[in-house]
Amino acid sequence: MSDPVRIGLLGCGRIGYMHAELLSRRVQGTTLAAVYDVFSEAAASVAEAYGAQHASSAAELIEADDVDAVAICSSTDTHIDLLVEAAAAGKPAFVEKPLSLDLAEVDRGIAAATEAGIGVQVGFNRRFDSAHRHVRDRVAAGEVGDVHLVRISSRDPDPPPISYIEVSGGIFCDMTIHDFDMARFVTGSEAVEVYATGGVRVDPAIGEAGDLDTAVVIVTHANGAITTIDNSRRAVYGYDQRLEAFGSAGMACSDNPTSATASYWDADGSHGRPLPYFFLDRYIPSYEAEWNAFVAMVHGGPSPVTLADGRAPLVMGLAAWASVREGRPVPVAEIG
Amino acid sequence: MSDPVRIGLLGCGRIGYMHAELLSRRVQGTTLAAVYDVFSEAAASVAEAYGAQHASSAAELIEADDVDAVAICSSTDTHIDLLVEAAAAGKPAFVEKPLSLDLAEVDRGIAAATEAGIGVQVGFNRRFDSAHRHVRDRVAAGEVGDVHLVRISSRDPDPPPISYIEVSGGIFCDMTIHDFDMARFVTGSEAVEVYATGGVRVDPAIGEAGDLDTAVVIVTHANGAITTIDNSRRAVYGYDQRLEAFGSAGMACSDNPTSATASYWDADGSHGRPLPYFFLDRYIPSYEAEWNAFVAMVHGGPSPVTLADGRAPLVMGLAAWASVREGRPVPVAEIG
Amino acid sequence: MSDPVRIGLLGCGRIGYMHAELLSRRVQGTTLAAVYDVFSEAAASVAEAYGAQHASSAAELIEADDVDAVAICSSTDTHIDLLVEAAAAGKPAFVEKPLSLDLAEVDRGIAAATEAGIGVQVGFNRRFDSAHRHVRDRVAAGEVGDVHLVRISSRDPDPPPISYIEVSGGIFCDMTIHDFDMARFVTGSEAVEVYATGGVRVDPAIGEAGDLDTAVVIVTHANGAITTIDNSRRAVYGYDQRLEAFGSAGMACSDNPTSATASYWDADGSHGRPLPYFFLDRYIPSYEAEWNAFVAMVHGGPSPVTLADGRAPLVMGLAAWASVREGRPVPVAEIG
Amino acid sequence: MSDPVRIGLLGCGRIGYMHAELLSRRVQGTTLAAVYDVFSEAAASVAEAYGAQHASSAAELIEADDVDAVAICSSTDTHIDLLVEAAAAGKPAFVEKPLSLDLAEVDRGIAAATEAGIGVQVGFNRRFDSAHRHVRDRVAAGEVGDVHLVRISSRDPDPPPISYIEVSGGIFCDMTIHDFDMARFVTGSEAVEVYATGGVRVDPAIGEAGDLDTAVVIVTHANGAITTIDNSRRAVYGYDQRLEAFGSAGMACSDNPTSATASYWDADGSHGRPLPYFFLDRYIPSYEAEWNAFVAMVHGGPSPVTLADGRAPLVMGLAAWASVREGRPVPVAEIG
Repeated sequence: MSDPVRIGLLGCGRIGYMHAELLSRRVQGTTLAAVYDVFSEAAASVAEAYGAQHASSAAELIEADDVDAVAICSSTDTHIDLLVEAAAAGKPAFVEKPLSLDLAEVDRGIAAATEAGIGVQVGFNRRFDSAHRHVRDRVAAGEVGDVHLVRISSRDPDPPPISYIEVSGGIFCDMTIHDFDMARFVTGSEAVEVYATGGVRVDPAIGEAGDLDTAVVIVTHANGAITTIDNSRRAVYGYDQRLEAFGSAGMACSDNPTSATASYWDADGSHGRPLPYFFLDRYIPSYEAEWNAFVAMVHGGPSPVTLADGRAPLVMGLAAWASVREGRPVPVAEIG
Repeated sequence: MSDPVRIGLLGCGRIGYMHAELLSRRVQGTTLAAVYDVFSEAAASVAEAYGAQHASSAAELIEADDVDAVAICSSTDTHIDLLVEAAAAGKPAFVEKPLSLDLAEVDRGIAAATEAGIGVQVGFNRRFDSAHRHVRDRVAAGEVGDVHLVRISSRDPDPPPISYIEVSGGIFCDMTIHDFDMARFVTGSEAVEVYATGGVRVDPAIGEAGDLDTAVVIVTHANGAITTIDNSRRAVYGYDQRLEAFGSAGMACSDNPTSATASYWDADGSHGRPLPYFFLDRYIPSYEAEWNAFVAMVHGGPSPVTLADGRAPLVMGLAAWASVREGRPVPVAEIG
Repeated sequence: MSDPVRIGLLGCGRIGYMHAELLSRRVQGTTLAAVYDVFSEAAASVAEAYGAQHASSAAELIEADDVDAVAICSSTDTHIDLLVEAAAAGKPAFVEKPLSLDLAEVDRGIAAATEAGIGVQVGFNRRFDSAHRHVRDRVAAGEVGDVHLVRISSRDPDPPPISYIEVSGGIFCDMTIHDFDMARFVTGSEAVEVYATGGVRVDPAIGEAGDLDTAVVIVTHANGAITTIDNSRRAVYGYDQRLEAFGSAGMACSDNPTSATASYWDADGSHGRPLPYFFLDRYIPSYEAEWNAFVAMVHGGPSPVTLADGRAPLVMGLAAWASVREGRPVPVAEIG
Repeated sequence: MSDPVRIGLLGCGRIGYMHAELLSRRVQGTTLAAVYDVFSEAAASVAEAYGAQHASSAAELIEADDVDAVAICSSTDTHIDLLVEAAAAGKPAFVEKPLSLDLAEVDRGIAAATEAGIGVQVGFNRRFDSAHRHVRDRVAAGEVGDVHLVRISSRDPDPPPISYIEVSGGIFCDMTIHDFDMARFVTGSEAVEVYATGGVRVDPAIGEAGDLDTAVVIVTHANGAITTIDNSRRAVYGYDQRLEAFGSAGMACSDNPTSATASYWDADGSHGRPLPYFFLDRYIPSYEAEWNAFVAMVHGGPSPVTLADGRAPLVMGLAAWASVREGRPVPVAEIG
């Protein structure tokens, strides 16, 4: 067995905290070596909870001899700078989604990583969910035949704070971006056109921030498949994550798990258990599998989610915003 | 296409009324020629509703030239006399379950039918239910392998009137008898031993009538399979009819349909539609298929549910009663 | 109990034949009095099978004293002429969908029926499906809250003949029209804009006939709800008919029934039974309920599916075609 | 937050290894302080993997100052001796099931623990499974009403080695003992009578070892509820663990989870994912919850699974063996 990969974690917010727990306790093959956050208290808390060093700067962490690889989980606008630093240090990097909201920035990161030849994995964890992956695997195995239609419903239980929404890139670059990734992942085909529409149905403050909270997107793929996506920032019944690929030979579906496989029956019928509340309940095994794949990449394997895989959904998100603004289907090639 | 089989219906109670509707409207290949009931009003009502003749006696109906076959749906204690009359007239007969509560009577009926060479089909409609039949077919095709365990839950929504219970033969000969039939049907193997227990949990009046309303039975089959059955006279959530066969190669299951394949989701989870209320909601297609099989038998085919198939579950029911009385497993051979 | 409604059936093709069977055998409260078809053999066959008169012309049937109401199940281009004749005769009418492919014709029919004051019901049978209706009822009861998203998948097992496709009005006016009706029915809100796209993935001959066989539609409703519809002319796994309404208070879903509630389990997992093959397997109870509603209308009740309900989905279908031709979302008001 | 509970683990076989991983990595509030096994290599391997001390004897481990509580996961015949030692040292103890195969031994352990006043929790992990617990909670909340019937299917994917079977106490004391615990847990009522039967259908070697591999049990409870249990040592489709409580007010069910909530549809119908292979796949969250409860007990809470809860299912297992030997229902009071 190889030595564990010593990971330096940049960013100790909600998602960073989760990764710290995974890296130090759940994932075989990693240790959490060091952490950093611009909010010193956040980093100190993680450092203490998981026995990691508390680096005094991102640069110190990235360059530390006992850090083999970095996990970039800080705010989106810092991702590319940190990636470029990791490339300069020759350290493999995990980068949370979205890579950036600025395509030029993304391209700068890709150039740096490519030149340095570091392995980079983008944090599209849903590719590692066993149910979604089943859909992809059936398609890849030819069991769905030619893919004609993909259907994705992706609904959060509650909106994030408005302060977050304001810097998030809006629903298409923050939330739908996962679904754009799924559309590419499942079909194995690039998007050529995006049509999007939506509304503000959940919270007027989201509209005042210039965003939508309810959205529908149609993606046309190069291979002729058509993906429909619907999103809501609030599903009162929990975190709703469904995916289905339909084709000439069959259909593969990923349905929601429930919090327990239990039911109650009375004269009104059956009563099943609720959905998981949110991604920490639903997707922990996918995050764990994501890190297993990262370990394999650090040990010489290919990236399971490349920078190109990180760039394409951002282009689709920008195309979706253009579509909403202009009321027309937008060719992806117009955006980048 | 053959001429329709002209059926004479004996007994116009609840089950007879249902058969009249099926024979005159739903089943291809039959007409309802004549009806008779000791309660003249019941017969008159059916005769008018479905345009059948109202015979003045059972004998007149059985012997009528324009009656090709008879359906014996009268009270249980009249079944064998009527079957013997049908045999004497050389008319094929459908007989509702149970054939009788008296084994000697059953044997008299079998002797008469055998001597006359008439086709007889016993009314175990559940053999024609598509979901139960799927279980049997998987077993018969070898996909379950050697059958090790069969599990049957069979629960009514509400008890019948006490007046009915008093003449019903009790839960094992009235209600469990269907499950005994299913156990034989699914395993393809005779019962060799029966152990039964139960209680009065639904209505003390059922206990005062000498019956149980809640029962559990273990049947050991000649091929080593073991069937467990549970029954209740009152399931508040509707008519619960489940069946499962487990063996060396797999498991086949028949689950409950619901009244609609629809659901509602809120923060408490999912809410599905109720089960069908009772046999008229659940089993109508099986009754229709039962008649199609009868038509095929009248046209020369084999009986799909023979008199021997009618006799064996009665023996099992009598063995179950002996088991409850004596607190021990009862070999079926002790009973008959 | 009222006297049965004596129905005259115009059109004895596949759908007419089905209605004849329902009207004469299944539906309480109707008799099939007379039939007519331009193909005399088709009418003769139905007349004989169900004991109805074989009228020598549509006019003779419509005007017959012993015909209380007419069922217009002939080819689409004859619907309005026959409706106008029924109006002239003062006879209530059932009209199959679509009313016509020509809005001016539809409006001529509406004018005639309105002037004559006859009751008219349009044949959108899915409104009577118990699972779809459950969704509508949850919305109408406020349990879904404000409706934000409606999702409809509607996929046929096999395309109709090309000869039919050529006169069908294309996928949007022939097949999606049912889904347009469902979108209005479930949301209780009119469409204001339609965006549609699609492709030819199933059979190139469908494309050569100027039609699509795979389609996706987004409908924006007056109340802000957004409906997504996907259609295919060929689902190899059977007739796929799903519907879901999502809103501020919950979600209501109509899922597919299967041909039997049975399963088989082996080391590969579970194996469930197929979907119903097509509408005759899936929707017979809805057709029966449709006729019960028609009987109630003839006896003085309101129309459950009005001529306005027949017109609106045609407008949506025409808007969908305009959207595909012009590559833009089309306001319904542009069409009519 | 309290200091973590420092646990000494006795027994480093398959189940001990699993507990070591949970105690050191997953469970909040515990550390794995020391380990011991009569097979020194097993203990050394666990000690190294999880950074625990490797004690040179059970006594040294139990008495160590830095061991706050002990986990007794060694072979069944050593449980009581170790429990008595833990009692002598005043250390709280977790004891795997079964406590012993000898009731007198169990009573000796109970006496020692009671006298010492130590907290003891028996390892019936299924009480902590969220789906099974849902059933218990519905019963406890009165939503099932008076419990009439409980139905348990509990089937392993593969038999253990014959060498294990020979010292296991046989199917009723090794495997069904979990179901006996569930029957008491769910009904909240003691067993008064046990009837059991079974066969050797999976492997003749199991029969040669004097055991059964296929079994059915009926348990009658003090409150009148009747539980049926079926067991098999080999379910080819995976680890089948189902539980259902039926009563006067409703039914609560715990069904099997599958390895992914995904399906594939083709012309044969639907194809779902397999069941979890075995308890490590299915029950890890229940083991984790079990330890959380243990931590709460060590911090002063009540035992969630008392020694009395450990004793009663053993009595039921012994009664089941008596029933099989003697072919009669056996009152639990006869056994102890």
